[in-house]
Amino acid sequence: MLDKLKNEVYQANMDLVRHKLVIHTWGNVSGRDQASGLIVIKPSGVSYSSMKASDMVVLDSDGRIVEGDYSPSTDSPTHLYLYRKFPSIGGVVHTHSTYATSWAQAGRDVPPFGTTHADHYYGEVPCTRELREDEVKDDYELNTGKVIVERLGELDPLVVPSVLVHGHGPFCWGADAAAAVYNAVALEEIAKMALCTVLLGGKEPIEQYLLDKHFLRKHGKDAYYGQGKK
Amino acid sequence: MLDKLKNEVYQANMDLVRHKLVIHTWGNVSGRDQASGLIVIKPSGVSYSSMKASDMVVLDSDGRIVEGDYSPSTDSPTHLYLYRKFPSIGGVVHTHSTYATSWAQAGRDVPPFGTTHADHYYGEVPCTRELREDEVKDDYELNTGKVIVERLGELDPLVVPSVLVHGHGPFCWGADAAAAVYNAVALEEIAKMALCTVLLGGKEPIEQYLLDKHFLRKHGKDAYYGQGKK
Amino acid sequence: MLDKLKNEVYQANMDLVRHKLVIHTWGNVSGRDQASGLIVIKPSGVSYSSMKASDMVVLDSDGRIVEGDYSPSTDSPTHLYLYRKFPSIGGVVHTHSTYATSWAQAGRDVPPFGTTHADHYYGEVPCTRELREDEVKDDYELNTGKVIVERLGELDPLVVPSVLVHGHGPFCWGADAAAAVYNAVALEEIAKMALCTVLLGGKEPIEQYLLDKHFLRKHGKDAYYGQGKK
Amino acid sequence: MLDKLKNEVYQANMDLVRHKLVIHTWGNVSGRDQASGLIVIKPSGVSYSSMKASDMVVLDSDGRIVEGDYSPSTDSPTHLYLYRKFPSIGGVVHTHSTYATSWAQAGRDVPPFGTTHADHYYGEVPCTRELREDEVKDDYELNTGKVIVERLGELDPLVVPSVLVHGHGPFCWGADAAAAVYNAVALEEIAKMALCTVLLGGKEPIEQYLLDKHFLRKHGKDAYYGQGKK
Repeated sequence: MLDKLKNEVYQANMDLVRHKLVIHTWGNVSGRDQASGLIVIKPSGVSYSSMKASDMVVLDSDGRIVEGDYSPSTDSPTHLYLYRKFPSIGGVVHTHSTYATSWAQAGRDVPPFGTTHADHYYGEVPCTRELREDEVKDDYELNTGKVIVERLGELDPLVVPSVLVHGHGPFCWGADAAAAVYNAVALEEIAKMALCTVLLGGKEPIEQYLLDKHFLRKHGKDAYYGQGKK
Repeated sequence: MLDKLKNEVYQANMDLVRHKLVIHTWGNVSGRDQASGLIVIKPSGVSYSSMKASDMVVLDSDGRIVEGDYSPSTDSPTHLYLYRKFPSIGGVVHTHSTYATSWAQAGRDVPPFGTTHADHYYGEVPCTRELREDEVKDDYELNTGKVIVERLGELDPLVVPSVLVHGHGPFCWGADAAAAVYNAVALEEIAKMALCTVLLGGKEPIEQYLLDKHFLRKHGKDAYYGQGKK
Repeated sequence: MLDKLKNEVYQANMDLVRHKLVIHTWGNVSGRDQASGLIVIKPSGVSYSSMKASDMVVLDSDGRIVEGDYSPSTDSPTHLYLYRKFPSIGGVVHTHSTYATSWAQAGRDVPPFGTTHADHYYGEVPCTRELREDEVKDDYELNTGKVIVERLGELDPLVVPSVLVHGHGPFCWGADAAAAVYNAVALEEIAKMALCTVLLGGKEPIEQYLLDKHFLRKHGKDAYYGQGKK
Repeated sequence: MLDKLKNEVYQANMDLVRHKLVIHTWGNVSGRDQASGLIVIKPSGVSYSSMKASDMVVLDSDGRIVEGDYSPSTDSPTHLYLYRKFPSIGGVVHTHSTYATSWAQAGRDVPPFGTTHADHYYGEVPCTRELREDEVKDDYELNTGKVIVERLGELDPLVVPSVLVHGHGPFCWGADAAAAVYNAVALEEIAKMALCTVLLGGKEPIEQYLLDKHFLRKHGKDAYYGQGKK
């Protein structure tokens, strides 16, 4: 079942390796079938080098295994909670990519220091608060999803498509699995540039009018970047 | 039309990927046909992996599409303005390469800390002022070109063949598209070294007489680097 | 003799190159045959590009050459001491990988700044004291092993599977040679992230309850990561 | 003539690219034929991608072209001066590799922060003083050689086989061209680690007895690293 989506999710997982966002098994991608609401996700702890599209696990929206020979990613409850709260998204990625994770470990939002950032995120990439002891002890992965949603607040998840979990790392999403990986790649590069900017003494984010210009020339009804408006 | 130039511009765009100066679609190269004054430029938002030489767009010097199935790069007005003001150049490159962009985000000129810099830039790599709100709201890409030209001032564009746009990233140029990419590659490495130099406590640019020596042994009538003077 | 183990140790040595943890001959891997107690180790100073599985040297637990055409790695006495003191381990790796070595050169433990760390090390990655002059002059490599064991103290070597030797670099171990390399790869990435975290002003390790959660969901009797518990 | 040496020097030049020590034409390697005293060196400004072994230029010890279709590297007078003053060396390398050049731009010696350093350099990697205006204006490349020799002073060039030229970059040497490249590769990694060590607050070089131990176990009559003493 869902062979096309399984293949997309498999390719998206392999793209994490190709883009050097993960080593070992430090990452996972899922995708949602918008018709049925079913989720396809990477199996837990399976090596990227031996993984096949048919190893992807199918879950229902409550996390029950619908199909698959493996256990799903340990982070599945986080993915499922994000899908539940963000109806517009169709893909979720979690990585421990070097620079985004370093900002998460420092517990800092990534400020919009330039137009590269503004092209992809309409404002800072937010970092969550620390989880409390009770939130870690029970339902940890579910609570990770909750703290992401709490931090995003009223923001449109497709306008700020990533959150850093404090002391952990980035979760990214998008319209589908490939879009989520696209955002994870952009975030890592943005986080690297932001570190270098800080090291060069940069302190101020760009002006709001420049942020507006760059985000809105690529996104929304007045976008004029790309081939869509020709 | 202009098949040779289209191929050069296509190759120059692909070289940005090969030299790891761009990810996603974060860069563009154009070239000018000196006989006709026509400009060949990358289409907007087209993936490097599927792009072909025949996808390049031909513009006249006022930005009208002369040939091409795609919209030209969103940054076309910046390219066109640079060609108009710098008659000696035949290629323009824009990237968001990591280290050059970080200097732009910090709003700092890259000082000539060593002879590597002096071999390629006769003085600091200048960073523009911030664009004002009115310059961003209307004719943003044109105004980006204007602020570059304003910052370069009286300098010969072939003697300082790059400018950093504040909060944005580098624009580089050269005698043709390949030369512009050559400069973009050099700038990125120079910007990386300059960051490391700052981190090691380096503060002072090299002496003017050393800057003169290195730049002038490679450029101008008394150059003795390379095979030209044998 | 021990052809299977020789091949595993050879592959593990080549994996150091593949993972970019060593240049030149700056690293070595060994493995122990648990049945006989014999150790298979890389020959000293042999280039990775010409090395073959049959070049691996077989030592007894006192360091006598049992089989092999080459001298064993100069660091063999360190490896042998670790095997003697840590009965549970079956592989040892030594590298001079960039970031882990930098922490060792700064003489600092790597703090558990995030869950990536906690997934692999149950607490900080400890750094030894400096060796005294007498410890360096005589039996230097043996004393390197002793100071590692001294620093680890009561900790389970499979729970903290790496130690940084002050002014030198990391030693890592695991259930077998491949597991030791796995840990060396993880350590290098963790050390890089920890440097970036420090540069971003990060000071505090994660809370003990989050460290517990991440380590124990991957290790020990209540682990639920991976496919083992399905 | 000297076809074997030409091939060695050609391979050594190509190895600079393979080890990512040079981009564009930012580096050069030469070798000396010990029997005749002739020097084989890279041609000036020729692209690595099109260069052939037969393009190497043969010079006598006074810098006259003995054979070759191209002009020799602009840095030839530096190479020749080093060969004249250091009879024990048979190869010279100059690069603008990122991290070694950054130390040179900061005008700092690279301190021996660890045993990786001590395995290759018996003490700090020294940085020269700045060249004076008169030294730059006339015979610049010759004076670059002189300031290197001045800085090295009484040290054995095979015991400290590299010097950083202030505001410029590293010159490295060795028994032959391949050994010089070997040292250039080691220096770049050591310089990178030393920067990271500084960023982590490391200040003190390792103790003299540890420096002695590591250098002397690899070099000189009591060496026991490698296969030589078996």
